[in-house]
Amino acid sequence: MQIQTLLGMELPIIQAPMAGVQNSALAIAVSNAGGLGSLPCAMLNAEALRAELDTIKAKLTPGRPFNLNFFCHPTPAGDTNKAAAWQALFAPYYAEWGINPAQVPWATSRMPFNRDMAALVCAYRPAVVSFHFGLPAPELLQMVRSTGAKIISSATTVTEALWLEERGVDAIIAQGLEAGGHRGMFLSEDLSSQMGSLALWPQVVKAVKVPVIAAGGIADAAGVRAALALGAAGVQVGTAYLLCPEATTSSIHRAALKSPLAHTTTLTNVFSGRPARGMVNRLVRELGPIHPLAPTFPLATAASAALRLKAECRGNGDFSPLWAGQNVSGCQEIPAAALTRALASGA
Amino acid sequence: MQIQTLLGMELPIIQAPMAGVQNSALAIAVSNAGGLGSLPCAMLNAEALRAELDTIKAKLTPGRPFNLNFFCHPTPAGDTNKAAAWQALFAPYYAEWGINPAQVPWATSRMPFNRDMAALVCAYRPAVVSFHFGLPAPELLQMVRSTGAKIISSATTVTEALWLEERGVDAIIAQGLEAGGHRGMFLSEDLSSQMGSLALWPQVVKAVKVPVIAAGGIADAAGVRAALALGAAGVQVGTAYLLCPEATTSSIHRAALKSPLAHTTTLTNVFSGRPARGMVNRLVRELGPIHPLAPTFPLATAASAALRLKAECRGNGDFSPLWAGQNVSGCQEIPAAALTRALASGA
Repeated sequence: MQIQTLLGMELPIIQAPMAGVQNSALAIAVSNAGGLGSLPCAMLNAEALRAELDTIKAKLTPGRPFNLNFFCHPTPAGDTNKAAAWQALFAPYYAEWGINPAQVPWATSRMPFNRDMAALVCAYRPAVVSFHFGLPAPELLQMVRSTGAKIISSATTVTEALWLEERGVDAIIAQGLEAGGHRGMFLSEDLSSQMGSLALWPQVVKAVKVPVIAAGGIADAAGVRAALALGAAGVQVGTAYLLCPEATTSSIHRAALKSPLAHTTTLTNVFSGRPARGMVNRLVRELGPIHPLAPTFPLATAASAALRLKAECRGNGDFSPLWAGQNVSGCQEIPAAALTRALASGA
Repeated sequence: MQIQTLLGMELPIIQAPMAGVQNSALAIAVSNAGGLGSLPCAMLNAEALRAELDTIKAKLTPGRPFNLNFFCHPTPAGDTNKAAAWQALFAPYYAEWGINPAQVPWATSRMPFNRDMAALVCAYRPAVVSFHFGLPAPELLQMVRSTGAKIISSATTVTEALWLEERGVDAIIAQGLEAGGHRGMFLSEDLSSQMGSLALWPQVVKAVKVPVIAAGGIADAAGVRAALALGAAGVQVGTAYLLCPEATTSSIHRAALKSPLAHTTTLTNVFSGRPARGMVNRLVRELGPIHPLAPTFPLATAASAALRLKAECRGNGDFSPLWAGQNVSGCQEIPAAALTRALASGA
């Protein structure tokens, strides 16, 4: 089945939800151009999400679909010993930047999908709801399903794809190792299970009956053509949108994307506690890329967030998560609508 | 330029050289079928190489090209302390298998390209010579060039591709992270520099003027189609050939390829000292995947080789390098000629 038929857009292009570097503006631009725009909701509370949904309602051309993306990680039990050990690693940085560790807020910034969010899905009825890190509890999933929304989620292995299919998802995003941001992995923490797109996509296509959405390393029309050749029904593209004017990518992040720093990325857990692909800046180099003491996602986030804030104010990106995939060659400072159409020319 | 025009074969399919699991039989079958067969020479001494070349001369259809592949790693200075520490790690295994460590031969099994090998290239004049781990010294490279052989080598990053192009290679193999066996990386030891095929290929294609041969994760005609869509001039395929009757893949290795063990591979240095992709068997699980004490390639090899020999005699693959790429879905027990034609149907 064509992914357009299933999800309701004109073009087989899904803009990847990217928390921290976009809001509804990017999603609206992509959806209005005929693709499927995605709003990342993991860092929004109910009030902020409602405001974004009102904006989408106001600005989206009637009849166009949009996608709400939620994380569904288990809420971690705080481990005081681990938290203290992790915070201790940041002491030299706090001293360097004049931060009082006692004043660092340790609250987490990323919420898993919950009843409040589900209520907003019921109220605003997006055409598509996508999940990262598996699926929410059955009763929450049922609430989403009852709205008629199509449900999609990310798989990073064939095993995860089969798990999702068994639970009735409408399509599966096969997220290759090239992808920027958080790995969607949820059945294994073993990074060696993670496959490059070229190996993952065709193996997932062979394993499941539902349509497969290819993600990871697609930067241009040729990448779209390659994904479709491997049996994907559509594609999800993130990194290429990061320089679009509708993205909220910071000036530090934009400059990094245009610099040689973007030519090497790595999977690191130092920013959040879960492996995510980004550029190798100072924090990644000095504490990472994978630190065994990083508290469970998302508890690790707060330690660097305070530093990031202070450093970014001085134009310094040493402590910022500079998420990017392995293929930044498609990043262009052009409107998201033009980028969406350019990608779709490969279909 | 079409890779066929440059290298002289009919089909844009190169069979990847795979030391330890093939000899001239596989190369001859592929070349006679219209692809480019490759003979891995790194584990052959001059006498053995000459014998293989005589076999090729006798069995190859006149006018068909073939490829000789050489490693060109620096010959490492033995570090006695490191070697002792590494060997000590194997003591429990030797005890378990009744091996006297004093009788383990510490000689290395892989030779870099040298004057003797160059002399054989001059004598037998293969159409193509490929290198792994960079290029040999200029005078040796010049000997090869003077025969009229086309010279190709592997790049795992854009930087390596540019380095090879500057030195006048005729084509570049862009080896994505999905590939089985040894990573060809030679300008960096940083595994985070290694990219998935979907990200690497198009970026190398954009960076260099010479034809690019895509490698890593290609298992079937659809994979070939995807590689060409991304701008590759041809493809190099290894893993898919491992079950062909012409390969010398051991029965242990064949059984593993057909088992769930092959669904997860990792980069490990425990077998040779350099990162190479293979299945996660006992040695990898217990000492690896990357062990900091592994002596410089290829000096790490001997420690496990003695164990491997003994274990394999009893049908046990716990200590065998079970090389495989991330996409074993194309492995078929069919003649190499049929596989070559099936791959080429995607071109």
